[in-house]
Amino acid sequence: MTANKRPQVVIVGAGFGGLWAARTIDTSRADITIIDHNNYHTFLPLLYQVSAAELEPEEIAYPIRAILRKVRHSDFILADVKGIDFSKRLVETDGVKIPYDYLILATGSTSFYFGVPGAEENAFSLKTLEEGTILRNHILCNFEQAVHEADSGRKERLLTFVVVGGGATGVEFAGALAELIYGPLERDYPTLDFGQVRVILLEAADNLLMHMPEKLRRYSLERLSGMGVDIRLGAVVGKIEKSAVHLKDGSIIETDTVVWTAGVRGDPLAERLGLPVSRNGRVKVMPTLQVPEHRNVYVVGDLAYFEEDGEQLPLVAPVAIQQGTVAANNIVRQIGGREPEPFEYKDRGTMVTIGRNAGVARLPGRSYTGLFAWILWLAVHLLNLIGFRNRILVMINWSQDYFLFERAVRFIFPSGAYSKIKALQCASKPETGERKEKKEFG
Amino acid sequence: MTANKRPQVVIVGAGFGGLWAARTIDTSRADITIIDHNNYHTFLPLLYQVSAAELEPEEIAYPIRAILRKVRHSDFILADVKGIDFSKRLVETDGVKIPYDYLILATGSTSFYFGVPGAEENAFSLKTLEEGTILRNHILCNFEQAVHEADSGRKERLLTFVVVGGGATGVEFAGALAELIYGPLERDYPTLDFGQVRVILLEAADNLLMHMPEKLRRYSLERLSGMGVDIRLGAVVGKIEKSAVHLKDGSIIETDTVVWTAGVRGDPLAERLGLPVSRNGRVKVMPTLQVPEHRNVYVVGDLAYFEEDGEQLPLVAPVAIQQGTVAANNIVRQIGGREPEPFEYKDRGTMVTIGRNAGVARLPGRSYTGLFAWILWLAVHLLNLIGFRNRILVMINWSQDYFLFERAVRFIFPSGAYSKIKALQCASKPETGERKEKKEFG
Repeated sequence: MTANKRPQVVIVGAGFGGLWAARTIDTSRADITIIDHNNYHTFLPLLYQVSAAELEPEEIAYPIRAILRKVRHSDFILADVKGIDFSKRLVETDGVKIPYDYLILATGSTSFYFGVPGAEENAFSLKTLEEGTILRNHILCNFEQAVHEADSGRKERLLTFVVVGGGATGVEFAGALAELIYGPLERDYPTLDFGQVRVILLEAADNLLMHMPEKLRRYSLERLSGMGVDIRLGAVVGKIEKSAVHLKDGSIIETDTVVWTAGVRGDPLAERLGLPVSRNGRVKVMPTLQVPEHRNVYVVGDLAYFEEDGEQLPLVAPVAIQQGTVAANNIVRQIGGREPEPFEYKDRGTMVTIGRNAGVARLPGRSYTGLFAWILWLAVHLLNLIGFRNRILVMINWSQDYFLFERAVRFIFPSGAYSKIKALQCASKPETGERKEKKEFG
Repeated sequence: MTANKRPQVVIVGAGFGGLWAARTIDTSRADITIIDHNNYHTFLPLLYQVSAAELEPEEIAYPIRAILRKVRHSDFILADVKGIDFSKRLVETDGVKIPYDYLILATGSTSFYFGVPGAEENAFSLKTLEEGTILRNHILCNFEQAVHEADSGRKERLLTFVVVGGGATGVEFAGALAELIYGPLERDYPTLDFGQVRVILLEAADNLLMHMPEKLRRYSLERLSGMGVDIRLGAVVGKIEKSAVHLKDGSIIETDTVVWTAGVRGDPLAERLGLPVSRNGRVKVMPTLQVPEHRNVYVVGDLAYFEEDGEQLPLVAPVAIQQGTVAANNIVRQIGGREPEPFEYKDRGTMVTIGRNAGVARLPGRSYTGLFAWILWLAVHLLNLIGFRNRILVMINWSQDYFLFERAVRFIFPSGAYSKIKALQCASKPETGERKEKKEFG
């Protein structure tokens, strides 16, 4: 049992926070174990491109064990964390129980619906690779159904796509969706009238990208409009039904597709564990990222509530990466009998891509719009993507899109009427009835 | 309704037979409509590599609409065919009904279990992209569970992989699985004893690859054995349970993974339609590939029963491709008032890959084993794969495997405890219990 004398560091979650913690910890001083319910890390900043049939799921995923091969004294457990016994220092999963000396919680965030009725049940979410794939399948299925749909009301609902939330995810997804529709899909469905297709972006505030400088917001609004996105500011969602969005002003948008990007909250695990959380379910941590009641427990990334200058840090990858790194170093300090150090966020800026040749970037001291910001966005995301192979594949896809105006696979999978996987099927089929009007061919 | 005066050719199924028919038909003479329950064509000869985590699903899939873009007067319908009204000349789907003047049935084949009890319920099948993915997820999940499994019996079942059937699919999959396990997975699970892992290939006959020349069979047997596959000839399966295979000789192999490649039969649609079928569910066609009762209905590929020299043609892509082509030309002949011509199979040989640098090829007049046959196999499959992009991606994966001894993604997806997709989840979790023995690290 000599191995057990080494401090055991357990990391729950292999997102940016958890993974950077694992890569940072000095494993000559401790053993680490990562627990995740997937066997892969997901590069979430590009998830919306999976939904827009631009990238394949595995191109933004990377096997956790492949990453850990380079980390000595590391282990991985594929499991779902059910609870934590803080007094016995045990992580309880649906399988084994894992003892820890130090714990890093990095389970991230989920969608937050602000109590809007029907939102959770009827809207698509964009927080996991599976959700991203379900949304892609749904969008492509809608076109397959619409092309043979005789009922005009039903056809309109199939071809109306509503994105709720004008933050970075909403803007990026709406742009990518418009480019998918008014490009490759127009060529795939030559008999469909694309004047009937609508991409609507709803934002409750009076501008997009609230945390961006005014110039960047204005640019984003103009570019996105120019790409065919119907942007509605000050549009507050009151209710979401299976085939309609009700706005607070009384108007109704009939649609089979509502994508919710308007809110995020900390993973519910934190509340279940009885940890002190903020209104949006994030754990209130000490400046050192420790949990006040349990000094051997750290929380990082989206799950951590951390204020700077009176505002909570945004739920973005750079915060998670920096916090994961600091938590890892603080644990090594504790092991060595030293005091943990406070975390300080180094904001290197944010970037949003809107479409072909169009991005916005807020860097320290300067802002950019257009081609330069777009190239910067591409470069930063490509370089930060984990895995050489993934970079190559993403580059192939992006090049194909850029030079050939083509999306790779337009793949409804898993799918099909014979599929056992109900959740990923085409949700509904067009009305039965003999196809009377055979379309005229070119 | 002038467009309707053009003859309507409907093709059910976008496999090799259906697709080649669509590409062949002279669409200045007829409109064509393809119906399939997937929106993509699957390159089935490489499906086993998806299950062996060598290729990703979309790399062997190609969107049907992308293929049809190049075919004028063509249309695609994503639907499940429920029945055919031969008198009214209507294809009934779960959505629209589609009228036809000429019909090509090309729905392929499914697994055939010869009435072996428990086989259909408990064995994995390798006939669709979804089945291929489910099997891959299952194999990788087994390793994730085995590495933390304390119970030795359960561990043995998790790490025993049984392939039933020593035909081309069984041999190729067993080889690819052995290379996955005794290569990348050994590096992924450094604490697991790979002496416990077994890949067992069961064949009822007294040799592998029955239709190959003796020299090729002997070579395959030797190579596969050398790669660690435990080949058992004359092993007749009597019963398959959830965690065991019972052989007719009374012996029992405890395993959680049985892959069935021992039999195929025509798609059950043919029987449901009341067409005259052979014992293995294939439609008995005329020499012209027409159905005797319905001279405007053709059957091609795996679904067609066609004898040559007293033996039925094998269920392979070249037969389907050649038959699809002939059926398409025969329809055009009929439209032009000419007689359909009989089909004649041009056998250009068959090839099977066993592993790295090892293949067997029977070509007209000569047979090859080893490196040359393997390179030939690679080249033929790469060139016949549909889509330039897919060829590039497959080449990247194969190169990575060949030069780095690495499999691309080892991706359990869709997966995870939070997944809504039950069928693709890790089927079962290891027994609960505190992980007592922390492994010793290198």
